Parts: sequence; structure tokens; C-alpha cells
Amino acid sequence: MREIGVGLLGLGNVGSGVVKLLKDNFEAIEARLGARVVVRKIAVQKTEKPRLVEVDRKMITTNVESVIDDPGVEILIELVGGETMARSYVARAIEHKRHVVTANKLLLAKHGDELFNLAEKHGVDIYYEAAVCGGIPIIRALREGLASDRIDEIYGIVNGTSNFILTTMTDEGKAFGEVLAAAQEAGYAEADPALDVDGGDASHKLAILMMLCFGARIRLEDIYVEGIRDLTQADFGYAARFGYVIKPLVIAKNHADGIEARVHPTLIPHRWLLASVAGVNNAVYVSSYALGNSMYYGRGAGMMPTAVAVVADVIELARNILGGATGRLPVRSYRSLSDHPIRDIGKLRSRYYLRFSVLDRPGVLAQLATLLGEHDISIEQMVQEGIRDPNRPVTVVMLSHMAQEKDIRAALAKIDVLPAVVEKTRLLRLAGE
Amino acid sequence: MREIGVGLLGLGNVGSGVVKLLKDNFEAIEARLGARVVVRKIAVQKTEKPRLVEVDRKMITTNVESVIDDPGVEILIELVGGETMARSYVARAIEHKRHVVTANKLLLAKHGDELFNLAEKHGVDIYYEAAVCGGIPIIRALREGLASDRIDEIYGIVNGTSNFILTTMTDEGKAFGEVLAAAQEAGYAEADPALDVDGGDASHKLAILMMLCFGARIRLEDIYVEGIRDLTQADFGYAARFGYVIKPLVIAKNHADGIEARVHPTLIPHRWLLASVAGVNNAVYVSSYALGNSMYYGRGAGMMPTAVAVVADVIELARNILGGATGRLPVRSYRSLSDHPIRDIGKLRSRYYLRFSVLDRPGVLAQLATLLGEHDISIEQMVQEGIRDPNRPVTVVMLSHMAQEKDIRAALAKIDVLPAVVEKTRLLRLAGE
Repeated sequence: MREIGVGLLGLGNVGSGVVKLLKDNFEAIEARLGARVVVRKIAVQKTEKPRLVEVDRKMITTNVESVIDDPGVEILIELVGGETMARSYVARAIEHKRHVVTANKLLLAKHGDELFNLAEKHGVDIYYEAAVCGGIPIIRALREGLASDRIDEIYGIVNGTSNFILTTMTDEGKAFGEVLAAAQEAGYAEADPALDVDGGDASHKLAILMMLCFGARIRLEDIYVEGIRDLTQADFGYAARFGYVIKPLVIAKNHADGIEARVHPTLIPHRWLLASVAGVNNAVYVSSYALGNSMYYGRGAGMMPTAVAVVADVIELARNILGGATGRLPVRSYRSLSDHPIRDIGKLRSRYYLRFSVLDRPGVLAQLATLLGEHDISIEQMVQEGIRDPNRPVTVVMLSHMAQEKDIRAALAKIDVLPAVVEKTRLLRLAGE
Repeated sequence: MREIGVGLLGLGNVGSGVVKLLKDNFEAIEARLGARVVVRKIAVQKTEKPRLVEVDRKMITTNVESVIDDPGVEILIELVGGETMARSYVARAIEHKRHVVTANKLLLAKHGDELFNLAEKHGVDIYYEAAVCGGIPIIRALREGLASDRIDEIYGIVNGTSNFILTTMTDEGKAFGEVLAAAQEAGYAEADPALDVDGGDASHKLAILMMLCFGARIRLEDIYVEGIRDLTQADFGYAARFGYVIKPLVIAKNHADGIEARVHPTLIPHRWLLASVAGVNNAVYVSSYALGNSMYYGRGAGMMPTAVAVVADVIELARNILGGATGRLPVRSYRSLSDHPIRDIGKLRSRYYLRFSVLDRPGVLAQLATLLGEHDISIEQMVQEGIRDPNRPVTVVMLSHMAQEKDIRAALAKIDVLPAVVEKTRLLRLAGE
């Protein structure tokens, strides 16, 4: 039986999952493919480290080049992560005419276009289903299932750690720090959680989604990003009271004058399907011209779910190799990407959640209302809570009608310096009209 | 620019959508493909009938063979529906080495294996994304995204008409007949609704899903099917009271001793994601070994959503043709299907909803409980409602623990002939443990 040789860079969590899945589903994969996928060599940093799966020690090396250059390796799986080294390994693999499978979202978000050009030049494929939402086949859905359609908007929960934290804060009423610590203990959050909870990881995935959805080459620094650290239990309570759930969303919309691209915690109506996406799960909600709304849901991280995506890519590349059809699918959804301007966040039109902390003195509410009105912001709902005591702050929460972000910011700049305002006003955005 | 010639059989709702989508998304499709998709000829039954889209009259013919045989046609799209004629057209197309795109679930459910064999023999592809859940790329997800995984269970809402009717009955408390009439007026139900509301359409889709998920060749008549006509408002009310929603589900599970395959209205916990799939929308919830749970949601029918799937298949076939890679992907997920026995419904283990209509006389509840107990059925929850009047019936609703269907049926056969039981007991199944 024909063998397809695979080289693996990295034997951590996902790498071990890949080895395990190829072994566990050996027969089914062989039946589906009519060929055998064989791991030939694995590059690791430390050969003696204990591993989650049993592998033949002879396959393991610290010499990355020897894996890439091995003539038996037709497909290289890059799972080392990071930016600089991964970039040079992938480039070397392409130049040696290896097809590449990678789960490295940072690499693709920052250097995707360069690597795709290189792959086109050398006639090889780069597949990256695992880079966005782990095992959910969202890349395939966008690149093939919706190849006939025009995508207008996407809303995604693409960072499982953030979704786990916000779900737990919602359900158990606990504070951010406490839930983060529990998530770290359970293995759902890294020791350094910054990339997850500050929105960086989500912004890398959003850049890849925008490339696929809009054919847009994006500069990461143009995406507006806010993390979830500042959310308090009070915000979850008020959101629920108004019929909303707070979710860590990525949002992108293709407007005539540029792309709207943002990553921030968002209030979404509890009846939306995305509101029910809980725990470490991910989902991408897509709005397209002909299909309308569709959603793709599942486990976005973890050893085995991510391995499903990596091995699915290996199978598809193997099918291409066996069919003599490498380069069949363009590495990008479009033949070439174009630079799409990203609109400044100030131009955003949205509904807003504003939580004010003010002293309960006569005329304070009128001051807030006047300043908001002067900036074209009208209020749809309001609640005021607290002890009636002129020396202690009360909380006033407002939901606005549609307004422009620059107006909201201008109004808050004036409001936050009022003598009766005791802390910086909390601003969150709402999804939907 | 290279042109890919397409022939179309049928210019009804979906056919018109295909023509419209190819026209509206012309530029994007060309950019993604690097080639142009051109409709060469369209076969219709009546040339003079008014159409939903404008087409060059010269392309239109009543001669199906002239479309299939046209040397400029590389891909044939079969949208005539039905069984006998469609089968002969598709066979002819394959024998003439045309690749085939079809949305015909009945054709595939009944003759899929025969047509796939024929396609393999002649080296052409059959794609059928539109046959299950319209525009949702579920076929791709199963065939490619989860090609690396082992699928254990699927739960699907695959008939939009039934889901629309049950959603409306739930939300508006109206009777089946009234909602069906409204659905027919709104164009969500056919004049003859039998195929939709009696479960036939859903069973065809389930057969195709089982082929993809389990590599199973299924005989349609082995699938257990119950429609939604007998549901009453009372059932929705009781379901809600217990925390459930009634949904028109298809369910398949791969057991060691055979496949469990059934189509019937099912009580699902309201916190399940599928419970939020409302109106005409479809969704398939997949449980697999490595990925865990994933779900695919969207519009399962309608002119444009179905056209998205058809044209996506055309684009993928065009990519294969351009890449010289037709036959790259096996027409089945497995190289060959095997006959899988379907387990008799009597062997089903499930939880049950039982609605009894009984006279409110002393000892009646004890009789029910005794007969259920004698058949190994234990009750988890019960409610009894009605006016205390020994001459008028009261309603007793029970939710059972896990039980076997043959036991439930045996118990009900005895219960339904008791003098105090005034009408046939309503039995519904629950999803989940």
C-alpha cells in the first residue's frame, strides 16, 4: 500500500494528539484514503522529556532540518508555535517542496501572505484548519462550503479560555481573578494568560478569518482589541437583567468604505444561538448574501480536537498527492489578497452599555443625560441602584440606542471628570441593532 | 480565460437560484477559481413557463439528452427531483463522463451506492452537498473536516418545514392543522405536506448522513419513522414544564451490534444547543471520538441557500477539473460501503414521555404504576391535572427513567385497554440520559 510520509515539528500536547489519532483511527483513515499515513520523523527540543504518547525513540531528533529535509517526508506538520523559528522552518519546508500543515495562527496572521506566495511559487499547499477554532472545520466551510457565496459579517467566539472564564463568571457569579486561577488549575488557561484574556490570540484568528471571508490582507495592529480583565460581576448581573449575555466576541463586517474589525467582550441577546455557546467551546456565526446565517460550533482547543483538524488536513493533502492534484485549491480563498483598510474604531456605530458610578445628588442624572444628548446619544433603557445616601456612590446603568463610538468617547471624556462621578465609566458594546 | 461548461436539468426554485447565484457572484467565483463557470444548456418541461430569473431562451430545451450529451457540458446539475427519471439522467451523464451535482436526497438514499459505483467505474465525481441541510456544508464537514475522526452519534434537525411547524406550535400555542395551513400559505410547506411532516424527507437525509458517518449502506425501510401530525398543544406545554422542547429529530448511533436509526419528534432539554434551532433552520449535532461535540447550523432549504451548496459543489468540481484531479475524493467517505444491520426499534433504550388520559377514580394511578413496574419501567417525574370529577378524564403525564422500547410498548398495550383509560396513551421519546 502506498505510504504518505509525514514529518512532525513538536511533540507537545497537539503533536501527541496527532500521533495518537493517526494510531487510534488507523483503519478508518486507511479505508478513507486508500493509502497509509506514516510519521517518519519528529523534531523535539529535548529528546529525554516524558511524552503523552509512546513513539519509537529512533524517530525523535533535535535536528529540525533533518526532519524537513528527510526525503521520505512529503507533508510537514509545524507545531512548534511562535513566530520567527516557525517562519523559517515553514519556509524551508516549502522550498524543499514539502506540503505544510500548521496550527500556528500567529505565524499565518503575520506572515501568511508571504508564506502563501512562497508556496504558490514552489507549487505546494499550506493547510491550516487547526489555526482557527481547533477541530471545527470552519476554514473548509469558508473556503469551500461558502466558496459560492459572499460573506458580509462574522461573529465568533474563538478563544476557549476567555469563553470559559466569562461563562463561569456568568453562572457562578465569581470574580475574574478567582475564575482565572481555577481555569489555570484545570488546564484551561496558560500560566501567562495574557494572549488569551487580553484578546491577542482572538485577533490572530480574526485576521485569518478576514483573509478567508473578505480576501483581505490585514495588519494585526489595525484590529481594535479589548480584553476581558476589567469585567466585574456587576456587569454580568446588569446584562442578564436587560436580557443579554456577555461573550468574548470577534466581529468583522465588510463595508464599502473599509472593514470593521474588533475584538472585545460584547453583550449579545440571550436568544441568539451564540449566547448558548458555553465553557471552552468555540463558534463562528457567519452572515452571507445567499445562505443567510450559518453557524459552526465545537471544541476550539485541546489535544484531541486540535489533532482532528491537523490530521484532516493531512488526509486532504494526501488525497491531493495521490490524485496528482497538489495546488488544486488556492492557498488563499482568493487568488490574491488585497489591502483592505480597517475602519477606525471611532467610526463604529453600535449600541452601548454604560455603567456609571456617581454620587446620589440632585441633578447628577440630568448632567449625564445632557452630556449624552449633546453628543447625539439617546438612551433606550436605564436602571439606578444603590443606597439613598448622598455620600455613597450609586450605580447607574444605561443601554443606548445606536450611536457612534467617537461620540460616546467624547461624551464620556466630559462625564468622567464631573465631580459627582467617582470612577471611570464602564463602556461595553452590544451586538445587534 | 478557461471556461467550465455546466448543464442544468430543471429551472424551478433551486435551478433559478443557481443561475442567479452564478450571475450575482460572478466576479468572486472567477477570482476564487481562476476560471469562468458558464451555463450552456438548461432542460425544462415547459419552455414557455415564466421563470424567476432571466435566461437566454436559446439555452432552454425540453430535450434532456441534448443537455447531457452537449460536448460543452463538463458538469451536469440534476435538479429534476423524483426517482426514476433522475436516476436514468444521472446514469446517462456519468456514462458520458459528465461530473454530477445533485440535490436529490431520495435518489441518493435509494440508489446512491449504485450511482457511486457507476461514477467510480467511469472516473467521474458525484457531489451532493445540497441533498442534506441545503446550504449548510455538512457533507464537507463529515467527509473532509472529520475524515480523521470516528463519528459515534448524530442528532439532526434536517426538515425545515417540520421545525417551523413545531417552533410555531411551541411559541404560539396553536394546533398542528392551523400552523400547517399558515406554513403552506407562507411557502414553508408544500400543498402535499406528507413527505415533510410524516418524516420521509428526514429519513432520506438520515440515510445519506449514515452513509457518510458510518460507511453504512442503509435500506430506507429499516429506519424507524414517526411524523409530527399527532402532537397536541398539551404535549408542548408539559414538555416545557419539565424543561424540554419538542423538536423533529433524526438520530443515529453506531453500536457494536448494529445501527440505531430513527426519525421522530423528540423531547430535548431546553439547554441543549439544538433546542435553540428555531423556525425553518436546520442543524446537525455530531458526537465523535476525538473532537467531541460539534454542530453545523443554517438554512436547510429555500432557493438561495440550496443554490449556495449546488454552486459550491460546481466550484469544487471545477477545481478538480482544472487541477486534473477528478476522482481525488472518493465519492463515498469510505472506499466501499458495507451493509449495516439496523437495530429493531424494540431494542431502543431511551427515556420516555407518557401522556395518559384516564378517569379520575381511586386506584387508577396504582394500576398504571403497577403495569409499568411489571415491565421494568420506573418513573422519574409525574404530574396529574384536571377537574376532580369521576366522570371526566384527567391527564397524567410521566417521564420515565431509561427503559426499553419493547417493554414500554408491552406495558402500554395492557394499559390502553384498561376501562379507566379513555384514549390511546401518547408516547414520545426523550433525548439524553
